[in-house]
Amino acid sequence: MKIIDELKFDEKGLITAVIQDAESADVLMVAFMNRESLLKTMESGLTHFWSRSRKKLWLKGESSGHVQAVREVLIDCDADAIVFKVDQKGGACHTGYRSCFYRRLIPKEDRVELLGEKIFDPGAVYDKSATKDKGS
Amino acid sequence: MKIIDELKFDEKGLITAVIQDAESADVLMVAFMNRESLLKTMESGLTHFWSRSRKKLWLKGESSGHVQAVREVLIDCDADAIVFKVDQKGGACHTGYRSCFYRRLIPKEDRVELLGEKIFDPGAVYDKSATKDKGS
Repeated sequence: MKIIDELKFDEKGLITAVIQDAESADVLMVAFMNRESLLKTMESGLTHFWSRSRKKLWLKGESSGHVQAVREVLIDCDADAIVFKVDQKGGACHTGYRSCFYRRLIPKEDRVELLGEKIFDPGAVYDKSATKDKGS
Repeated sequence: MKIIDELKFDEKGLITAVIQDAESADVLMVAFMNRESLLKTMESGLTHFWSRSRKKLWLKGESSGHVQAVREVLIDCDADAIVFKVDQKGGACHTGYRSCFYRRLIPKEDRVELLGEKIFDPGAVYDKSATKDKGS
């Protein structure tokens, strides 16, 4: 895949990935990909990321089954960020919410409020040995 | 503003900001904020960013007039990324497109295709001394 050589990975070899629900258009999560995880994503059609905390490649949904099937890939003007429009199975977030962006900030009141309800029980989905890394 | 102390800025003091069109729900751009630019955004209601290339704070639209009025602010589970839903005046991108994500990647064909049309002429909007930093 030659087009990947036109993308700008940062000094850590990472590029920002914004995951957007193909149906609702909600932003589900922001994560990072290195070259290998981007290639895996393109080959498999399922999002793969680079975990900065665990320093390893992960398939989103590998523990939970909550995979993201890629429908569309958009690249920005600087070629340093990618939007993936996906079909999200289950929830994107390890907390049980569909989106990782489940809190709204109310600046004038200096507080957050929760948006919507949890759609799954994280305790039932993730085993104790699994990471909490953005709902793996 | 105390809630800002709960956000996780990275080792460079930055947090990822995803800018989403409040009407169309298109992702318009991805940029970075430091603490100061986030506070300026909250105070003014217009997005301000930290330019990594110019190492300075900038008001989006300061040259072009293409400001982004913040309608909603969402925080992710890790508190290290923020979605701003905005009313975008003019175009978000310095290239003349409404969104910085104006290219679709076609993985199987290893090529990109352009989405939509330019909505303004960058040469007429930005003076030559202005930066090209994501449509300032």
